[in-house]
Amino acid sequence: MSPSATLSRSETWSLLVLLGASFAIIVNTFEGEGEPVIASLAFSGVAFAATYGMIRWLGPVFIKAGLKGEDKAKPTEPELPETMGAVCAVVYLLLLIAFIPFAFYKDIVAATSGGGNRDVVLQTEQIETGRYLHRFPHNKLASYLSGLLSLQVVVILGIGDDLLDIRWRHKVLIPAFGAIPMLIVYFVDFGVTQVVVPVPLQRYLGPIVDLGWLYYIYMAAVAIFCPNGINMLAGINGIEVAQSVVIACLLVANDMLYLAPFTPYPHPATDSHLFSIYFLLPFIGVSLALLCHNWYPSKVFVGDTYCYFAGMVFAVVGILGHFSKTLLLLFIPQMFNFLYSTPQLFHIIPCPRHRLPRFSASTGMLDASVTEWDIPPPPLVSRALGILQRLHLVRLTKNEEGEIIESTNFTLLNLWLIWMGPMKEDKLALRMVALQTVCGLLALFVRHRMALLVFHEDNRGIRWHV
Amino acid sequence: MSPSATLSRSETWSLLVLLGASFAIIVNTFEGEGEPVIASLAFSGVAFAATYGMIRWLGPVFIKAGLKGEDKAKPTEPELPETMGAVCAVVYLLLLIAFIPFAFYKDIVAATSGGGNRDVVLQTEQIETGRYLHRFPHNKLASYLSGLLSLQVVVILGIGDDLLDIRWRHKVLIPAFGAIPMLIVYFVDFGVTQVVVPVPLQRYLGPIVDLGWLYYIYMAAVAIFCPNGINMLAGINGIEVAQSVVIACLLVANDMLYLAPFTPYPHPATDSHLFSIYFLLPFIGVSLALLCHNWYPSKVFVGDTYCYFAGMVFAVVGILGHFSKTLLLLFIPQMFNFLYSTPQLFHIIPCPRHRLPRFSASTGMLDASVTEWDIPPPPLVSRALGILQRLHLVRLTKNEEGEIIESTNFTLLNLWLIWMGPMKEDKLALRMVALQTVCGLLALFVRHRMALLVFHEDNRGIRWHV
Repeated sequence: MSPSATLSRSETWSLLVLLGASFAIIVNTFEGEGEPVIASLAFSGVAFAATYGMIRWLGPVFIKAGLKGEDKAKPTEPELPETMGAVCAVVYLLLLIAFIPFAFYKDIVAATSGGGNRDVVLQTEQIETGRYLHRFPHNKLASYLSGLLSLQVVVILGIGDDLLDIRWRHKVLIPAFGAIPMLIVYFVDFGVTQVVVPVPLQRYLGPIVDLGWLYYIYMAAVAIFCPNGINMLAGINGIEVAQSVVIACLLVANDMLYLAPFTPYPHPATDSHLFSIYFLLPFIGVSLALLCHNWYPSKVFVGDTYCYFAGMVFAVVGILGHFSKTLLLLFIPQMFNFLYSTPQLFHIIPCPRHRLPRFSASTGMLDASVTEWDIPPPPLVSRALGILQRLHLVRLTKNEEGEIIESTNFTLLNLWLIWMGPMKEDKLALRMVALQTVCGLLALFVRHRMALLVFHEDNRGIRWHV
Repeated sequence: MSPSATLSRSETWSLLVLLGASFAIIVNTFEGEGEPVIASLAFSGVAFAATYGMIRWLGPVFIKAGLKGEDKAKPTEPELPETMGAVCAVVYLLLLIAFIPFAFYKDIVAATSGGGNRDVVLQTEQIETGRYLHRFPHNKLASYLSGLLSLQVVVILGIGDDLLDIRWRHKVLIPAFGAIPMLIVYFVDFGVTQVVVPVPLQRYLGPIVDLGWLYYIYMAAVAIFCPNGINMLAGINGIEVAQSVVIACLLVANDMLYLAPFTPYPHPATDSHLFSIYFLLPFIGVSLALLCHNWYPSKVFVGDTYCYFAGMVFAVVGILGHFSKTLLLLFIPQMFNFLYSTPQLFHIIPCPRHRLPRFSASTGMLDASVTEWDIPPPPLVSRALGILQRLHLVRLTKNEEGEIIESTNFTLLNLWLIWMGPMKEDKLALRMVALQTVCGLLALFVRHRMALLVFHEDNRGIRWHV
């Protein structure tokens, strides 16, 4: 059964009201002295409304074009439109492009004497503090544009992946290509590769160390990890989008710590975090609209495109906003999932093409899926699996001779099902959302409370008095 | 019969030699004080080699993914991979991103005291003239990036068009969306909307007139026309790519007039034309590689993606290089084709979905295709068609009662077949290439010789002494 392609009357009216209110705010912001953060919120409203409607309308079109997949975790295995993340991404990118004047224009008007050399930038003292707080300077335009370029590269290659079904070891590198514009513009535009050394190491390395090209390797690694991390923690309805929304909300919460009234301004990190907010609010808008259609029971699938796109949004704000370490702290479940998966990724244990939890039509529940050992594992692997079983990290099935014939797949979703027993798909998704939220909140707490133990100052500007 | 997916031994070796030579030049350029224009040439070599190989390899993959079409102008109507322009575009975009440091980096090193404020730009006098000639200043980075963003938007939407088969009246607007990044960055970064008034009009308007928002409408119109102009002059093997290559080569020839030894430097227009060369050389590289596979008899189709992409490359260099009037002079065949098509576009005359010339299997020739009048045209249209027939602009078929039952489709290709009689597909394509070249050369001659009749100076800097 293909989903309906029209909006209900109440949906239409809700979206129109949201659109109208958003446009009113945007026009008001542009004409007055309004704040870009408010405009960004309004853009998120437009993002939600446009994405919600387009996903509904384009469903049958996508299916007709062959962009479809079966939902194996339902009794009827319905055929759903695939790659809907591309719709999100296109709406998002066009809106972020349209947002450029809101982020930059007034600054230019203020900073020049009306035409002429627009590179003249006023000194901090000359700008009223209120404005300083909410606008970031024009010389960051290149950085903003490079972030958009990176996202577009990842979206183009992601669509190619969804269409052409690229091999696993090739698709891991798609975010690497996506990172190139960001890294190149960083190289051309800033080129700062010094990092602050944690206090315990300062006696060996000095207060600041220049990582040089290693810093670019690090940034590329972050950009490769985030999209693939999200893409790997996938397989049940709504999980890709829900985890992305949680991460985005936590990042926005973190950004707000750097704005008034939490942090005195002017503050050196304010600009970076405004940058982050401008990128994240519309992302939350498009993602929530997608989540409405993708949450259990899914009406659409998101495709690899969405995972790459979402991960790249995080990489862009983390890298260009200079808080990539904080960013990684919010990816703890994804990191665990990756590390836990390595035995299968490196083919020490057989890795089937899909490792998502197995649906039992009789119970309507999901249980951990398994990989089958056609020939029993070698003794060393066998012993390692035994140890993991005793640690409750895997579930094994043995034949009469005591040889392992099945072991569960090494993903966080399967592990959760081993621990908690079979459960419904939506319950599992909710548990993952809760896990992501708890880990993230803990990480942010640690980052802001404990960072002072290893650094002389939190970059929120609170000095640590020894 | 699907095409072979492997390169022959001689092809492999030729491409490897080209790649090797190009990489050697690029490394040499980056390490030494080399010139970006040479590096850009080497990038074009890489572009050709990469595109040539990838189109061959990806052919079967595209067919498997459903990106395929039938070549109706062949006796066997073979099934060919479609949308190969997307491969061109991706290779091109990644290379243009990789080219950023070559275009900008040395400038920065020269213009700053090693780190710190990189916005300091040296005065013209301080830069050795040789360098001034071949590099453009750092503050154009945003403009370069916005050009790339525009191209990426058009490629993403073009792929969507090829996949989802968007309606005609919607797809016309795809380039309009593509133009947005360019126009917004123009608005934020430069905002110059004054134009020089031709001498005969100066007594009414003054020497310079500020067009304001009309200038943005004009730029958007250029950006909408170029891609759609190329997309409309299509339908036979190789024609889309061949016309684009001709236009690109003529634009490069025009750009070279602004470089030494033709123009004394430093010259205000040099930067814009370097910008144009950097965008056009790799475009010629990917397009020639595509042409090798797309020329008669085609092994692959280019898709709407290519037409949008190619047209947008021209719009970007024309608009950001500030020579959009010259650009439009090179689109005379496309403009004629558009104007000639208007009776069908506005449905005064019935417009079938495809208007490409009709293939006759018996002769192996193409002849003008026709649209059928189920009910005879109204008297006014009938009389107009009669006049057009007397002008040799249409061919009509009448029934015994003298009513029009068929009229040829209004495209340049059909008109050429009316004038010259049926001919083979490759001969028709060659004639179109010749027409494009002759029109373009004439236009450039007029532009550089005759412009002085209506403007006080050619922007090559030669004053007109009254």
